[in-house]
Amino acid sequence: MTHPTEPFPFSARLARLRVRLGEADADAIVVTELNNIRYLTGFAGSAGILVVTATQSELLIDGRYEEIVREALRVGTMAPVGITRVKKYDSTLLEVLVAAGWRRIAFEGDHTTVAQYGRWVAGLPNVELTPVYDWVESGRIVKDAAELAILRRAGRLLSDVAMGLAQWVDVGRTEREVAGLIDSAIRRAGFEKPAFDTIVATGLNSAYPHARPTDRTIAKGDLVLLDFGGVLEGYCVDLTRMAGAGRVGADSQALYLAVREAQGKAIAAVHPGRLTTEVDQAARQVLEQHQLGSAFVHGTGHGLGLDVHEAPRVGPGDPSEAVRLESGMVVTIEPGAYVVGLGGVRLEDDVLVTAEGQEVLTTAPLDLLIV
Amino acid sequence: MTHPTEPFPFSARLARLRVRLGEADADAIVVTELNNIRYLTGFAGSAGILVVTATQSELLIDGRYEEIVREALRVGTMAPVGITRVKKYDSTLLEVLVAAGWRRIAFEGDHTTVAQYGRWVAGLPNVELTPVYDWVESGRIVKDAAELAILRRAGRLLSDVAMGLAQWVDVGRTEREVAGLIDSAIRRAGFEKPAFDTIVATGLNSAYPHARPTDRTIAKGDLVLLDFGGVLEGYCVDLTRMAGAGRVGADSQALYLAVREAQGKAIAAVHPGRLTTEVDQAARQVLEQHQLGSAFVHGTGHGLGLDVHEAPRVGPGDPSEAVRLESGMVVTIEPGAYVVGLGGVRLEDDVLVTAEGQEVLTTAPLDLLIV
Repeated sequence: MTHPTEPFPFSARLARLRVRLGEADADAIVVTELNNIRYLTGFAGSAGILVVTATQSELLIDGRYEEIVREALRVGTMAPVGITRVKKYDSTLLEVLVAAGWRRIAFEGDHTTVAQYGRWVAGLPNVELTPVYDWVESGRIVKDAAELAILRRAGRLLSDVAMGLAQWVDVGRTEREVAGLIDSAIRRAGFEKPAFDTIVATGLNSAYPHARPTDRTIAKGDLVLLDFGGVLEGYCVDLTRMAGAGRVGADSQALYLAVREAQGKAIAAVHPGRLTTEVDQAARQVLEQHQLGSAFVHGTGHGLGLDVHEAPRVGPGDPSEAVRLESGMVVTIEPGAYVVGLGGVRLEDDVLVTAEGQEVLTTAPLDLLIV
Repeated sequence: MTHPTEPFPFSARLARLRVRLGEADADAIVVTELNNIRYLTGFAGSAGILVVTATQSELLIDGRYEEIVREALRVGTMAPVGITRVKKYDSTLLEVLVAAGWRRIAFEGDHTTVAQYGRWVAGLPNVELTPVYDWVESGRIVKDAAELAILRRAGRLLSDVAMGLAQWVDVGRTEREVAGLIDSAIRRAGFEKPAFDTIVATGLNSAYPHARPTDRTIAKGDLVLLDFGGVLEGYCVDLTRMAGAGRVGADSQALYLAVREAQGKAIAAVHPGRLTTEVDQAARQVLEQHQLGSAFVHGTGHGLGLDVHEAPRVGPGDPSEAVRLESGMVVTIEPGAYVVGLGGVRLEDDVLVTAEGQEVLTTAPLDLLIV
């Protein structure tokens, strides 16, 4: 039963976790990954631990967050959880677990360090501690209606930001200046913040897929790679567009066209039932046909949600380790080609897997923006 | 021997790590913490693994970073390391470790997940894998001359940003608007980016130490808490100042004066040989004298460097677990007091421990800024 003011279906999310708990015959799970805690409870602090049993959820937080959480619980914007105020997370957690007397405790193997695990083992004699994997992430990978509403809105807002690029990218401006203008626009659009460090890579710098903005000035003939994102109510969207400063050379033009074709083919390949490796292959094949296979030095995309990189990864590899796309998954499609001494091109959109195929959430034109 | 163009003493840093390796009689250490890798080599990517032996350093990176690293190696702005391009980090790491035939391998217990460790154990039969702690961090805690030069410059730049607060904080502006203006100024000042999500908390919101900026409008009589930081060449600085919208009430004024006294006492307590708990106690004692002990819901400060929160923690606790300050450590001093229904006050400066005592790196006036 969802509380009437709950902004997200916390009860359903916790219920799914409790099914896992029952299947594993564990008394409790210790959730340490902060976005997993946010997904399950709505708590969005920078520290916290959540303990979930078949019937209860207890949130361990420090003094900085106590009042804000009590208020959220009062107005119903968080899942109903018990609150334990901690002095030191590890020691308070051990006290809670020892006092409860549980014998079988699951924990997140991907989000617990060897150091933490060692302290828990030492502090919990006679307790069976079991690392478990993807218990929360397996829910997060398929977005629910509340999440899709945010992601759709975020996609539109980010597309609006992209529509301003022509004003900001200009010969004589530095990469850092353009990045600053984009970041300001991301906030003005209503995002909480950029989803990652904005990339503005011009001329030969664009050949480095993760270049940081420098004081290099945009010059005539440059390719300009613009990769930026925003966080809206905790959810991340991510977009890359290309500009050209005046007329770009024939080689740059060919690079752009090849990547654009690859991106279109990969988007068209997004479909429920399709493997992530098949979507990657759709982009890769096009670039290979253009003799750009070795210039495509990263995967085709990644999932989006509370994390800007989350499951599923859309990359090459063994199909047996690939993810089969389902309606409700949201991924980036962002093939690129990078040629040292010439430049690089990447085009990126955020794509929702629908029952019928796909819906592109970021609708700004893909054209090479001539400035 | 430091390469003439090396911006940081990478050789000395790696040599310190190799002393640890020798003491532990280990063949190699696997470094997974990204800022530890940056500290040792200058590589500042978002993924990578470094393997260090008595004689060699091998950096595992993916295709996105290969060209940028080769260029940095060519011009000498990184430590001289070997490069292995990975497809998947875990499997390539195992290949490298197996091929080398090492028998005793150390890894960072604080920065390795139970999942990773499990895969390494499975892939490395007959290898003794030992978690080790603070091998790199114990070096990072005392800043070298190159780091101090950056932190001093960053402290001055952040103080310059603080001098603009009077222009931006104004009755009728929202918290989000003010945060946006601060963030723009941080970039204009030359920082790469804000060091964390800027906090602008007004009126009753200021009672929540980690409030996020809302659409609340600043009103007459509000206390305004402004906490922001910047990243310069990878290094973080962090500052909090208070403003009042017109005349603030007597209770708010008293809260401000108590915190200011506490902050001054704690800064004066910073001295080589002093325990972090003693510095915390200097602030805490003042607030307790003002009956604000329970309103001080966090520690007095934290170390600053490549991470915005790093060792040493300056908080209460068992003196046997405290850190003894040494010349070259840099910490924030940021006591606060938070009263729900009234508001909160925090004042924060960045302080270098010197041979003689302390040097405050953030010199903007501490006065309650009346706007």
